[in-house]
Amino acid sequence: MTERTLILLRHGQSTWNESNQFTGWVDVKLTEKGEGEAKRAGELLREHDLLPDILYTSLLTRAIASANIALDAADRDWIPVKRSWRLNERHYGALQGLNKAETLEKHGEEQFMLWRRSFDTPPPPIDDDSEYSQAHDPRYADIDGEVPRTECLKDVIERFLPYWESDITKDLEAGRTVLVAAHGNSLRALVKHLDGISDDDIAALNIPTGIPLLYRLGEDNMPLGPGEYLDPEAAAAGAAAVANQGKH
Amino acid sequence: MTERTLILLRHGQSTWNESNQFTGWVDVKLTEKGEGEAKRAGELLREHDLLPDILYTSLLTRAIASANIALDAADRDWIPVKRSWRLNERHYGALQGLNKAETLEKHGEEQFMLWRRSFDTPPPPIDDDSEYSQAHDPRYADIDGEVPRTECLKDVIERFLPYWESDITKDLEAGRTVLVAAHGNSLRALVKHLDGISDDDIAALNIPTGIPLLYRLGEDNMPLGPGEYLDPEAAAAGAAAVANQGKH
Repeated sequence: MTERTLILLRHGQSTWNESNQFTGWVDVKLTEKGEGEAKRAGELLREHDLLPDILYTSLLTRAIASANIALDAADRDWIPVKRSWRLNERHYGALQGLNKAETLEKHGEEQFMLWRRSFDTPPPPIDDDSEYSQAHDPRYADIDGEVPRTECLKDVIERFLPYWESDITKDLEAGRTVLVAAHGNSLRALVKHLDGISDDDIAALNIPTGIPLLYRLGEDNMPLGPGEYLDPEAAAAGAAAVANQGKH
Repeated sequence: MTERTLILLRHGQSTWNESNQFTGWVDVKLTEKGEGEAKRAGELLREHDLLPDILYTSLLTRAIASANIALDAADRDWIPVKRSWRLNERHYGALQGLNKAETLEKHGEEQFMLWRRSFDTPPPPIDDDSEYSQAHDPRYADIDGEVPRTECLKDVIERFLPYWESDITKDLEAGRTVLVAAHGNSLRALVKHLDGISDDDIAALNIPTGIPLLYRLGEDNMPLGPGEYLDPEAAAAGAAAVANQGKH
């Protein structure tokens, strides 16, 4: 039996990670630190001889730029690329653009954590006229159905997993090493599926920025063992930092 | 009738442009100057409101990186990408890796210009064991037929134009603004076709690095008028620099 190789990569630090704002579908860029994380991710791929044959990205610049930088560091710029809105970050609704610490202070910890980690309760929807809405963004003109105004993790799973089945697993089945460059919550959606995490337990799972997460999959496209970060120490520190967002 | 919009972009300066070496299919990176040229190209696209809907690149890092940088500067990172070896630079055979000035001195101007600009005489083929051969490069594992050992411009036309017809024109016909990020000689092959330049006259055509070249095409996918560089002054200076390569 041949193992299938899947590598997940959350984008490096973005300008709004740095300024502690809810980002969602707002198309912010990487910081210099984030570019450095992406480069290190590519070096880790090369050091571990994990050379992607195909790249999947969301339609958001921070994931695309992270992948471009990582692949350049691994000398794999030339692999084919597929992009889909289905890999996008969770749409954060009316919270998009707000500061996390201010939101925590204003609404209290219970409401704050509900918005951040509830499985099936989305934040209030964003107004189409908001400067942080994507209702009129041309990149989503071909989207099936309507552009989201808000999403909970359950919504992300419902839009991501059909694409996992229809496209990504097909490349895995063809023997290709697949790199998925995406976001904290879209990757949580996939990891929930792969690791069989319950709706309750997924709240505690945090994925750090910029560290490749390796899965070896069997013929059913499910993991043969736990996912492994290529830099476990940095990953533990990074996950703790994500968990503490808002608390400073 | 709707005009079709095609934008050609030769990659920015590469390390071997700078060191004046024959490059061909050797996968060298951009210099800092080349990255700056690519960024400027993206700014020119944005200033002229020429926003690509789809990107075509070769399989060579310098073209891919130029496109990535330009699209980032134009906030179009997210458009779909198709890559093909058929857009690669001309394979320079046994000359790959040699210094242009030294080659000129050693072989004389007549032989030098024959290798550089002959329409149908390729340089001697490169040995498969050369460090600059691509015979064993995994990115060309799926190539139709054999990996080239050398090419003349006629060979480039014969591998590029079928892809122009089968893929690129289909996106133009669908109303998409197409950006083609490629190389001095693969773009000369396409411009020869578009502008109906003779086998003799094409020798005098030089395409500068990093300046978008805009064509408006009609329903037959042929130009409605001459191609226009988005920065004509820089393009004229750049073309003269290409023509003088080796002569310093």
